[in-house]
Amino acid sequence: MLSFVNDYCEVAHESILKKLTEISLDKNPGYGTDKYCAMAQEKIRKACNAPTADVYFLVGGTQTNKTVIDTCLKNYEGVVSANTGHINVHEAGAVEFTGHKVLGIPSHDGKICPKELEAYVSGFYKDGNHEHMIYPGMTYISQPTEYGTLYSLAELEEISRICKKYDMQLFVDGARLGYGLACQENDVTLPDLARLADVFYIGGTKVGAMFGEAVVFAGEKRPAHFITQVKQHGAMLAKGWLLGLQFDELFTDNLYEKIAKNAIDTAIVLKKALKEKGYTFLVESPTNQIIVVLDNKRMEELSKQVNFSFWEVISEEKTAIRFCTSWATKMSDVLALTEIL
Amino acid sequence: MLSFVNDYCEVAHESILKKLTEISLDKNPGYGTDKYCAMAQEKIRKACNAPTADVYFLVGGTQTNKTVIDTCLKNYEGVVSANTGHINVHEAGAVEFTGHKVLGIPSHDGKICPKELEAYVSGFYKDGNHEHMIYPGMTYISQPTEYGTLYSLAELEEISRICKKYDMQLFVDGARLGYGLACQENDVTLPDLARLADVFYIGGTKVGAMFGEAVVFAGEKRPAHFITQVKQHGAMLAKGWLLGLQFDELFTDNLYEKIAKNAIDTAIVLKKALKEKGYTFLVESPTNQIIVVLDNKRMEELSKQVNFSFWEVISEEKTAIRFCTSWATKMSDVLALTEIL
Amino acid sequence: MLSFVNDYCEVAHESILKKLTEISLDKNPGYGTDKYCAMAQEKIRKACNAPTADVYFLVGGTQTNKTVIDTCLKNYEGVVSANTGHINVHEAGAVEFTGHKVLGIPSHDGKICPKELEAYVSGFYKDGNHEHMIYPGMTYISQPTEYGTLYSLAELEEISRICKKYDMQLFVDGARLGYGLACQENDVTLPDLARLADVFYIGGTKVGAMFGEAVVFAGEKRPAHFITQVKQHGAMLAKGWLLGLQFDELFTDNLYEKIAKNAIDTAIVLKKALKEKGYTFLVESPTNQIIVVLDNKRMEELSKQVNFSFWEVISEEKTAIRFCTSWATKMSDVLALTEIL
Amino acid sequence: MLSFVNDYCEVAHESILKKLTEISLDKNPGYGTDKYCAMAQEKIRKACNAPTADVYFLVGGTQTNKTVIDTCLKNYEGVVSANTGHINVHEAGAVEFTGHKVLGIPSHDGKICPKELEAYVSGFYKDGNHEHMIYPGMTYISQPTEYGTLYSLAELEEISRICKKYDMQLFVDGARLGYGLACQENDVTLPDLARLADVFYIGGTKVGAMFGEAVVFAGEKRPAHFITQVKQHGAMLAKGWLLGLQFDELFTDNLYEKIAKNAIDTAIVLKKALKEKGYTFLVESPTNQIIVVLDNKRMEELSKQVNFSFWEVISEEKTAIRFCTSWATKMSDVLALTEIL
Repeated sequence: MLSFVNDYCEVAHESILKKLTEISLDKNPGYGTDKYCAMAQEKIRKACNAPTADVYFLVGGTQTNKTVIDTCLKNYEGVVSANTGHINVHEAGAVEFTGHKVLGIPSHDGKICPKELEAYVSGFYKDGNHEHMIYPGMTYISQPTEYGTLYSLAELEEISRICKKYDMQLFVDGARLGYGLACQENDVTLPDLARLADVFYIGGTKVGAMFGEAVVFAGEKRPAHFITQVKQHGAMLAKGWLLGLQFDELFTDNLYEKIAKNAIDTAIVLKKALKEKGYTFLVESPTNQIIVVLDNKRMEELSKQVNFSFWEVISEEKTAIRFCTSWATKMSDVLALTEIL
Repeated sequence: MLSFVNDYCEVAHESILKKLTEISLDKNPGYGTDKYCAMAQEKIRKACNAPTADVYFLVGGTQTNKTVIDTCLKNYEGVVSANTGHINVHEAGAVEFTGHKVLGIPSHDGKICPKELEAYVSGFYKDGNHEHMIYPGMTYISQPTEYGTLYSLAELEEISRICKKYDMQLFVDGARLGYGLACQENDVTLPDLARLADVFYIGGTKVGAMFGEAVVFAGEKRPAHFITQVKQHGAMLAKGWLLGLQFDELFTDNLYEKIAKNAIDTAIVLKKALKEKGYTFLVESPTNQIIVVLDNKRMEELSKQVNFSFWEVISEEKTAIRFCTSWATKMSDVLALTEIL
Repeated sequence: MLSFVNDYCEVAHESILKKLTEISLDKNPGYGTDKYCAMAQEKIRKACNAPTADVYFLVGGTQTNKTVIDTCLKNYEGVVSANTGHINVHEAGAVEFTGHKVLGIPSHDGKICPKELEAYVSGFYKDGNHEHMIYPGMTYISQPTEYGTLYSLAELEEISRICKKYDMQLFVDGARLGYGLACQENDVTLPDLARLADVFYIGGTKVGAMFGEAVVFAGEKRPAHFITQVKQHGAMLAKGWLLGLQFDELFTDNLYEKIAKNAIDTAIVLKKALKEKGYTFLVESPTNQIIVVLDNKRMEELSKQVNFSFWEVISEEKTAIRFCTSWATKMSDVLALTEIL
Repeated sequence: MLSFVNDYCEVAHESILKKLTEISLDKNPGYGTDKYCAMAQEKIRKACNAPTADVYFLVGGTQTNKTVIDTCLKNYEGVVSANTGHINVHEAGAVEFTGHKVLGIPSHDGKICPKELEAYVSGFYKDGNHEHMIYPGMTYISQPTEYGTLYSLAELEEISRICKKYDMQLFVDGARLGYGLACQENDVTLPDLARLADVFYIGGTKVGAMFGEAVVFAGEKRPAHFITQVKQHGAMLAKGWLLGLQFDELFTDNLYEKIAKNAIDTAIVLKKALKEKGYTFLVESPTNQIIVVLDNKRMEELSKQVNFSFWEVISEEKTAIRFCTSWATKMSDVLALTEIL
């Protein structure tokens, strides 16, 4: 059975497992005070051209989203997000669970529109009643988005400008950031993110690590006692060096982008085949998530030979499904899939 | 200056102040264990034809909404509401502050559509991913709505049926309930509410009381240790008899509906005048809130002679404003207003 | 039946009810934007010798405690309190419900000892592990305490000094503040409180008001958007002028201290009688709460003629009970009680 | 430099790393729906003699504590714990952060006394005021405790009886459970825990796993939609099979107890040496944590040759420190340490 179900179904890149095995009985201090964290932080600062950034390592995406959002917001602030944003739909209300409202605005293939963002926020301040409403304290976007789409540098700069104007922080969820960075259409670099976002993270779980997300605070607003708050959120990994070591590997010799590129290369081949065979795309995605609309009958046939994700019901006869490539996808599997399509 | 700004700008009905003054130095036990609470509870049970209902008295609307919703929901549950619902817009995120997501669905002049409710909830359970999403555990509606509109009995029964089918509680915010009950178009009675809702409240603050909302749990699902949870929410009035006494007065000789009727009678006269003078209504409201759309210039002129509420911007030239009558509105003021219109 | 059960069993001082009745049909703007609030704020600023203080009015004590503590603390901070502090015992966990730990330290007749406070806080910072612990961000004391005892000015200054040294805020719960101010042994004035505490409140519910607590922020640290946060806590009274009017009355012609003095005068007579009749005091309280230890048999006899509060079990044979005087206590009732003792 | 600083400073037992490497490119379904989780759950059910138990895998101890406690308690309930309990001191207020009070009772070398527990809880229900207090809804104990001590089976049965009597759940934190099970003095087995506790966990992080805690619900009370609540707490590991695989290894051929025994064997040798050399023990601990009291000067000398943990200040001249052995401690290191002592 072929599998294109998601980008987090393998353990980790071999270099990480090799390294972990080599040092398995070394004794390391806990809670991120070890040398691997220090090395990884330094490499990430360099890659981001942000020598004074604070870099922290957390275990997973939802955990990172809720911890960052809660520690950055004040009680009376909420976070603006596309209605389709991961925090608004698929995190079991983790953000609200910490007391903060998610303020949904329209999604355009997973992205928010800067103009709509500004209209929303400026409208808030014009409302005579706004003292009885939740203040927009942060904008959350994902790069790439949940639909595989990308913000251009121009869009990101515009969103950043709006956030500064209205005293909101900008948080970029980079759970799949590697697949954005490795993509030819992309013009947003790590230094751009460090310059334009107050906080963002570099996803490891979906891009070659066993698990882990590297949170980068490069701006001036940084939560006080973040370590204590991470502990308070139940998000502290005792053996912090497991995270440091993985990001140290991924940021050595550009491994992170190299392996991410495999997902893009295989996705390009797959998209080309899908186009040639006349498939309809739900979204034009330049990254590793490919969402197509199928007749239900065709979907059922395919499902006997390949694993994919259900995406959404389109009509009684049609369904959108997702094929996902990853750092670990073999080109031979893609070719086998194109045979079936 | 005439005032039609809202329905909570006077202290209270005279009979309440008279009674409070009479008993001002009597000694009463605290926290709702007094005789006035007992009498008021009994009268409300009778009025609701719900002899086994639990009745509690809280101080205000947002407080009641957040306390009821939080004590009725489990961690993993959210509350479905019209996007325009008071809890979703004008309560400073009080519901999210207790950890629960408000699940917005479309508003039709303040009301939710039963079909859309069922589509939303059934869709939730069909989503393969719903274990990573917030469960719809309650439906929140207001009667009358924030736009002055009313649910018909047929609509309420349909919403109640859907709630039961999907194991959701039904909560009716009755901050202005009196103005619904007193309205000729209305066919939903207190016994209907007690029969169809798991919990609802009878608003006092806006209908003749100094303050206070009477929460009625008439169904089988009732929060455990509600008193303790009220205390925990900071919603316990030490001198509980102040609340009991007010509702005892309001439910003696049908005072509640009698004084509510004044708001409807005056509103009818005002609406008639507005129609005759060619004003455009934003919403067809049968109750005491009258929302009209004006040229900004006309609005400015009017504002020199009468207080009203800003409602929303319609366009660059037009604005919606609200005239509100109440239990205390004098017909002479309405007539004076019609002169100006 | 005589009653000395508590100091919040009457409606309110007559001047308040009179005033409410006079203005009952006046139209006032909501949410504390009215003239009564403005007048009361000005009078309180003057009484506190704190011309730039922010003054807010909330409804009750637990509500005020939880709202002030939550809005003043950061996520990673807790509040130090005597183990017997109201917030630690009798508020149904309202503070923890907002996410903050109450850090209990020993109680000495309801008071904390400055030396023990400093030892606790300095110990926290010496603990190598303190990044995994809750930071002490505030000290909570009550004046008078739950046991009727008072902090001296010297003690208060010492506690204030410690708080400043360790970057903690000082919050004084003044639910019964009037009874402290009216007491001869007391040397802590309102200006002292405004100078030494970051925030404190002047209790109305127990000192002549129908309900209400006046929160005074006179220092430099003040929560942002406090009004929005009050709404978010469900603590906003729509008819804010009800609170303003009461405090305006209480702070006119020194009414607050005048009526509080009645509680002290009657308590002095009662304490003298108790001493003469050989009763044992649990605590030496200079204010209006008198706690004595009785044989259970004697307690039972007394309970047939007078209402008092159970305080705590002392042994199998003995119980502590509380007699409480108030602004409304009649000297004739005290004399009647002394006959019984 | 010798290190006895803690029991979580190595990566993992070699068999786990070997297995992870073997399957590193296999594709597994996410969120704990994989075969390894299923196998591990089955083995744990067997080891616990609890064929119907629900078994879940979480990442770390604080995360597990807060998630279990919050999902088991109702709003108005708190958790009783020894004052020294990990949840009460070293988890940055994670339990309070979810809204629940930790109700501290005295610690006796890390243990609670059943009699004191019963006195506390029965006293709560006798208090006339208990509706204004937090209900004791759960008892939290750790086995072994934070001081390395163990509850006997008789004690555990007594605590379980008290919990049932007062409708409290019993939760056993087994972060170091292996070291208790492997200990000769211990008479509490996994089936005993499954029978007597409502929920407990088998610690992996400190006993040979890279990370992970196996939560076992074997009683009748089980939180609804636990998976959704785990997600909501940010505690869901996307690659759930990483946890399943580790516990599958640990529960194959009794590996868990075998490697735990190494910690006990080395601790016995070390304790014997300490005794012979006249060291004073702070606590008599039968497990892998050895706490001794030293002159500060001696402590400083030792610290040049061996890493240990600071435990607590005893006096100006004396300090308690901890030596900790683990599954990975080499006997040769223990012998080297005894030379230095």
